[in-house]
Amino acid sequence: MYFELFQQFQKTLGQMETWLHAAETHAKANNYPPSDTLELRLIADQLPFARQVQIACDTAKMGAAALSGKTAPVHDDNETSLEQLRGRLANVRAYLGTYRREDFAGATERKVSQARWEGKWMTGQDYFLQHVTPNFFFHATTAYALLRHKGVALGKKDYLGERTMRLPE
Amino acid sequence: MYFELFQQFQKTLGQMETWLHAAETHAKANNYPPSDTLELRLIADQLPFARQVQIACDTAKMGAAALSGKTAPVHDDNETSLEQLRGRLANVRAYLGTYRREDFAGATERKVSQARWEGKWMTGQDYFLQHVTPNFFFHATTAYALLRHKGVALGKKDYLGERTMRLPE
Repeated sequence: MYFELFQQFQKTLGQMETWLHAAETHAKANNYPPSDTLELRLIADQLPFARQVQIACDTAKMGAAALSGKTAPVHDDNETSLEQLRGRLANVRAYLGTYRREDFAGATERKVSQARWEGKWMTGQDYFLQHVTPNFFFHATTAYALLRHKGVALGKKDYLGERTMRLPE
Repeated sequence: MYFELFQQFQKTLGQMETWLHAAETHAKANNYPPSDTLELRLIADQLPFARQVQIACDTAKMGAAALSGKTAPVHDDNETSLEQLRGRLANVRAYLGTYRREDFAGATERKVSQARWEGKWMTGQDYFLQHVTPNFFFHATTAYALLRHKGVALGKKDYLGERTMRLPE
């Protein structure tokens, strides 16, 4: 189910683009610079909004790459506007859109490591279940929470997006 | 991967129990009633902390039941203390612990519906990917964000818990 969950991540990144539009609308209606949004935090020692969006993007792209033996595109974490953050979201969505089910054929058994893990590693399946999936939704939801706290007009449907509902038979 | 993701949900519910202990410690150190925690919100029209915990529990238990043709245990949403919320988390963790991989054998093709969906339904796979997984992590992370905003001492490792790292070979 790797492929299908990365498709869900891709969908959620698309929802996040709509949140940034709502944040821009809120800033204009309340006469503050839209780029102030990038600095939002719930508490002083929390990573700001821009980092939450960047890490959600990175978790998805690096997860897909690590689980398929590819190299993810690099992003420099230098966005200074909501428009630039939307560009990053769109870029990572497009990158995830290049993946096919067969790219994840050997994902479960891959050895995955990160520089900060000091040589330790996880199996592809453990990495996906214990790291990628909870982290992705953590940073997406934290970004959403920061906007809710600021008063941006968002609701649960903006988080989930359209679900594939079938009509009564 | 249904079974494995429900195991991850079970683990996250266990992490949430540790957050409630941290919330109790914070309340005592700052001289407010621990049960005030249940009313925390980031903004007036948001469901309070207690509901976030209850819905995370319900999303996991109802997801597992719906995808395996079982009936989930009922909880009455009447918790008035952190201790009672921890009891609910422990109860749902134990319930998820009764599941075996084979319970989800037909999950992908099941028809899943909810009373509020007015007869519409989702396939088991769509329900799991588009509803259960994003909703579960949404409510867990929102509960975490509410505690962070209040100043409770929590960090990312308290969200993820211990990951299965392998030693360098």
